[in-house]
Amino acid sequence: MSNQIDVLTETLTDLVLDRLRTGLAAEGWFQVEASGRHVHLCVDDAKALFGDDYALTWIKDLSQPGQFVGKQRMSVVGPAGRLDNVVVIGPERERTQIEVSMTDARLLGVNPPFRDSGNLADTPSIRIENGDIAVATRGGLIVAERHIHMRPEAAQALGLKDGDRVDFALDSPRPLTFRDVKVRVLETASNFMHIDYDEANAAGFSPGMFGSIKRN
Amino acid sequence: MSNQIDVLTETLTDLVLDRLRTGLAAEGWFQVEASGRHVHLCVDDAKALFGDDYALTWIKDLSQPGQFVGKQRMSVVGPAGRLDNVVVIGPERERTQIEVSMTDARLLGVNPPFRDSGNLADTPSIRIENGDIAVATRGGLIVAERHIHMRPEAAQALGLKDGDRVDFALDSPRPLTFRDVKVRVLETASNFMHIDYDEANAAGFSPGMFGSIKRN
Repeated sequence: MSNQIDVLTETLTDLVLDRLRTGLAAEGWFQVEASGRHVHLCVDDAKALFGDDYALTWIKDLSQPGQFVGKQRMSVVGPAGRLDNVVVIGPERERTQIEVSMTDARLLGVNPPFRDSGNLADTPSIRIENGDIAVATRGGLIVAERHIHMRPEAAQALGLKDGDRVDFALDSPRPLTFRDVKVRVLETASNFMHIDYDEANAAGFSPGMFGSIKRN
Repeated sequence: MSNQIDVLTETLTDLVLDRLRTGLAAEGWFQVEASGRHVHLCVDDAKALFGDDYALTWIKDLSQPGQFVGKQRMSVVGPAGRLDNVVVIGPERERTQIEVSMTDARLLGVNPPFRDSGNLADTPSIRIENGDIAVATRGGLIVAERHIHMRPEAAQALGLKDGDRVDFALDSPRPLTFRDVKVRVLETASNFMHIDYDEANAAGFSPGMFGSIKRN
């Protein structure tokens, strides 16, 4: 019974928060999430690392529908250093994509470009490892560009369309305006603004903060 | 002879750059410098770490007159991790001040406040080490607030005074506007805007970049 009440409370809280985010998004306010380093794997690389019979094990949903944190962990290895215990995000993608911060890139000794997720042309490859098994990726190493996930209703209310660029202000302890931020409009999106840990640290960000689109 | 020409060339280059920075500052443009983690030591802590007869060994001038990188290195040790090979900045100060980034703070497992350099009331202490010698500082651990070092002539030209706060835009690969940035006007200053590595990485900063003050 207590457990049922917990589940109900959580479900209701999520619904209220979602309604809140929907209303705020139409006014240009978006909740901000900071993404840590993570890897999206293609099926071939996942099989190579975790075996032909592998299946990514769901442990937590992410805010974007269908995306989840996998139980599997791996290492990313560069010429100057390595990152262990790196999260694998499911489901699998057409191409392996390794997203690190600039701080991570310096530690690894690599120089990946700033890129939108999925835009992997001419990106460097990197070594990924699971225990004794190592794979050299076919490209895919990037520092992810910040972006705003937006539902069509919010975009319409704001007069924006997919691919538009906006300024986004965060009134955090170290207030910042992220300029030239890409808007991604998708029917299946949840309204969220995504930054990486360098950007989060630069802003003095803490989870739960909202920021707002500034019209130029 | 070749060496004399090198020295002359370097001196002339510095003079030209200084003149350039002076002219640009009056228009609101400032060269940006990213400060890595570093420690300023009080004489007592310096003696404890390096011996009663120590002297900080100059190896490089910093942009602010009189400030220099010392040859001495030390470690900063927190409950969750340690930073080795940390730079000591000379000359000595009245109080020891340890400046780390938020990324560093997470690694150390500490939670220092954002503070202006020198404003150390109620700041946490931290363990600093030189080999086998360890000292617990009397407070002094901060994440330094970004700031603009400004000469009085530039401040006058811009209608600003010491302690004013401005927005500062950097048109870097990840363009950012740092809002609410403190202006420090000092007769002996060099015109420079200072950020830390988290802020540099968030902006996609590279050395030599200039940014500009935005009037609200």
